Amino acid sequence: MSLDVLVPFAATEPKTRLEGVFGPEERAEFARAMLRDVCAAIAAAGGSPTVLSTAEVESRWPVVVDERPLTAAVNARLEPPMAVVMSDLALATPEALSRLFDADGAVVVAPGLGGGTNALVVRHPEFYTDYHGASIEDHRRIAEEIGADPTVVDSFRLAVDVDEPDDLVELTLHGEGAAAAWLEGAAVGVDPDRGEKRVGLDRDRS
Amino acid sequence: MSLDVLVPFAATEPKTRLEGVFGPEERAEFARAMLRDVCAAIAAAGGSPTVLSTAEVESRWPVVVDERPLTAAVNARLEPPMAVVMSDLALATPEALSRLFDADGAVVVAPGLGGGTNALVVRHPEFYTDYHGASIEDHRRIAEEIGADPTVVDSFRLAVDVDEPDDLVELTLHGEGAAAAWLEGAAVGVDPDRGEKRVGLDRDRS
Repeated sequence: MSLDVLVPFAATEPKTRLEGVFGPEERAEFARAMLRDVCAAIAAAGGSPTVLSTAEVESRWPVVVDERPLTAAVNARLEPPMAVVMSDLALATPEALSRLFDADGAVVVAPGLGGGTNALVVRHPEFYTDYHGASIEDHRRIAEEIGADPTVVDSFRLAVDVDEPDDLVELTLHGEGAAAAWLEGAAVGVDPDRGEKRVGLDRDRS
Repeated sequence: MSLDVLVPFAATEPKTRLEGVFGPEERAEFARAMLRDVCAAIAAAGGSPTVLSTAEVESRWPVVVDERPLTAAVNARLEPPMAVVMSDLALATPEALSRLFDADGAVVVAPGLGGGTNALVVRHPEFYTDYHGASIEDHRRIAEEIGADPTVVDSFRLAVDVDEPDDLVELTLHGEGAAAAWLEGAAVGVDPDRGEKRVGLDRDRS
């Protein structure tokens, strides 16, 4: 039986932290491209994605709409065994998601950059999510409180959620799906000479 | 036979991008703590670290000094099979490094955030490094030019090199060694309320 996977998606004014780079229509298109990539990678890894969206969105996968904040919307539907994978993990590959889905443990977490929890597998009936603040610490604590030693999946591809201009650099360098193609079409590339080691973003508006 | 591992270390004015957080002495101490952590993790993963430093530095591991830029200093000593692991991978664990060392392939790379190459295993005699700019792309290209299909190790712990204030957040959340302890001693913590999802840094100077 394939693993049910919730894919939370903010359908209303998505990706506001990219407003310096893209207009509102572009941000919405880009967010939907990432959602498609993530759902396709989940399916290729053997999962069954359900989009958990704040508003109606077109998708080839099942969509449920819940306007509440992320934590409440996820907890309302969390029925172990189940996974939760964020819709902006545009670098996620079937291989990386297979490592997540196949990891042993009552609670499996994939940390995001900056303290987030980008993906979870929950097999324990008492686990619940808390996405506020440094959620990776809260999720570790919640797992320990219910007697589950959380398994941590060490993945760069699952650690990068695409939120900010710096994240676009990662997508340009390592992306393989619709979102990376969309970004290329939007003429966003990397400028290897910006910064000493980290490369910068370069948008050709010509 | 254990794998020889070069650990490049910038001994002179290290970590200048942390100058908003730490003074020069502190940055030097912190850089040495990270170096110790990385070398210890390499040894625990079965590697033999040699510190490749721009100036003399005390270490329990062998040290060779080369004042030249990173690329020239590394290429001068690259004798496959050999690995190169950056000295500021303060999140690197023996498990993450074992995945790197044990990965099959003539050239194995671990991408860093922002296009860097944080760790390499080189088993092909014609491979050479080029750390300028988006080095992960250059290293892929160089590998392909010599007929080697590069193996990519997908690791968050190897992707984070600690260079900038944001990286300290990762170390505070996920670090386990001397550098994380040093950071705690320096009263650097995370502020879960700064930013909507990514947490901020909070230094208690009292």
